[in-house]
Amino acid sequence: MEESDIYYWKSIAVKMAEQVEKAVAPLVGTPDAGEIIKMGADGTPTKLIDLVAEDEAIGVLENTDRPVTIISEEIGILHINQEPPDEPRIIFVVDPLDGTSNAIRNIPFYGISVAVAEYIPGGDLPSLNNVVMGFVKNFATGDLYWAIRDQGAFLNDKKICASSQNSLDRTSLGAFIYGTRFRRVDSICRVIRRMRILGSVALELAYVASGSYDAFMDLRENLRIVDIAASKLIVEEAGGVVTNERGESIDGLLNVKARTSLIAAGNMELHKKIMQTLEAI
Amino acid sequence: MEESDIYYWKSIAVKMAEQVEKAVAPLVGTPDAGEIIKMGADGTPTKLIDLVAEDEAIGVLENTDRPVTIISEEIGILHINQEPPDEPRIIFVVDPLDGTSNAIRNIPFYGISVAVAEYIPGGDLPSLNNVVMGFVKNFATGDLYWAIRDQGAFLNDKKICASSQNSLDRTSLGAFIYGTRFRRVDSICRVIRRMRILGSVALELAYVASGSYDAFMDLRENLRIVDIAASKLIVEEAGGVVTNERGESIDGLLNVKARTSLIAAGNMELHKKIMQTLEAI
Repeated sequence: MEESDIYYWKSIAVKMAEQVEKAVAPLVGTPDAGEIIKMGADGTPTKLIDLVAEDEAIGVLENTDRPVTIISEEIGILHINQEPPDEPRIIFVVDPLDGTSNAIRNIPFYGISVAVAEYIPGGDLPSLNNVVMGFVKNFATGDLYWAIRDQGAFLNDKKICASSQNSLDRTSLGAFIYGTRFRRVDSICRVIRRMRILGSVALELAYVASGSYDAFMDLRENLRIVDIAASKLIVEEAGGVVTNERGESIDGLLNVKARTSLIAAGNMELHKKIMQTLEAI
Repeated sequence: MEESDIYYWKSIAVKMAEQVEKAVAPLVGTPDAGEIIKMGADGTPTKLIDLVAEDEAIGVLENTDRPVTIISEEIGILHINQEPPDEPRIIFVVDPLDGTSNAIRNIPFYGISVAVAEYIPGGDLPSLNNVVMGFVKNFATGDLYWAIRDQGAFLNDKKICASSQNSLDRTSLGAFIYGTRFRRVDSICRVIRRMRILGSVALELAYVASGSYDAFMDLRENLRIVDIAASKLIVEEAGGVVTNERGESIDGLLNVKARTSLIAAGNMELHKKIMQTLEAI
């Protein structure tokens, strides 16, 4: 992507985060926010606050004058400002509100995830490898985590580096644990310093990038690729490591159905130790 | 306690929360904050940010002209503006910074817990039953949860009620799980809707009071009585239930050594179902 395009689409992604933040603010902590409106494109129920967030995100792209495609949980895929047979070149992969249940209950961990991918027409189907920029914003604190491929990762205006902690017994680990194999969770809990469950994967991966977490794991094999499209790049640009639970690199397709497990760590050594602890079971 | 005294000590507690918030703000998210300075009165290491918070809390009481006693993690017990053999009448039970590790890592879930207890000289040793007011403030969001005995519980200026959710399969449960018996955690995880581990017991109990959580449990038998002195009252004034893991009411002594397990729920029915699930193991 050319420098001027990066500059342009970055400004649109930041604007999208700001607009969605404003749109959902009146609903945060209200019972209305959690009302189920319909079923989303990914087969899960859509709540009012999710729909408000997505409508706003789409609106921001509609107000540009350039062709762009959005992939998002409720709507699936939508081409904007373009007619077939034009193939999409710029794809916004958006989770308009990650941590919905936190937002409904006024727990300060919820926000947007926006990945911008570049697709070369005629090539393979667009995947995580096509992601050029990632943005994750915590609406409750206003913090924006972002990265541009090969240019590093940032928290607001400050460059961030993932944790260099490589001792398990000093590790702070974020996790999704329910619905997973408990013996494996137990084995990890026995060796680490502390565990957190904050309930927003995109933000928790951003925490791995910034060093707030030393590592994060989700062993459910049920994590949507589109939900980590932005934050995976942010972790990697901050020097961290992201794989699935078998230690393989994740390069899922950018669609709302693709799912994976995930183990992220601030550095290779810690990642290896977590893998070894899980494999010993 | 007389109405005018309630008014006075409430203003001091609110001021303490504001002053400590300001004092720790420059340290949040910095490596210096976590530097270990000494061992606290409770036998655990004291970090710089804890010490700054406690010094500020003590300073607020020293600047009043009334006799008052403070009980806090690092200092143990300190009588202010009073000479022996005067016995303390007003006791501030303070955790100047609950969620220290979150503050150090810039995870927006840390704050102060202040309970104000009235002791009748010559009576039994002061316990949780003597607590008249409780205040818990999340410094990252500015939210103040508070209660006055027999007058209800509040979030900022709004009266709050604990959750009426009584179905386990729709329950959001906060928990401290590591270092506990995993089979019991597993059994609960299988039946509830979602679990959170946010790492600040005082704030998580405040969440039970406000309905952000339906319930909270800590089965370690290692929870300091002084750390729940404020939030237990807030939950109860909001209509919730707090017991130890055997379902007994908690009336520990107000000193830094006393510890307990804890199960809190928004209502009696949910509390009973959680107890039954744990006892079935």
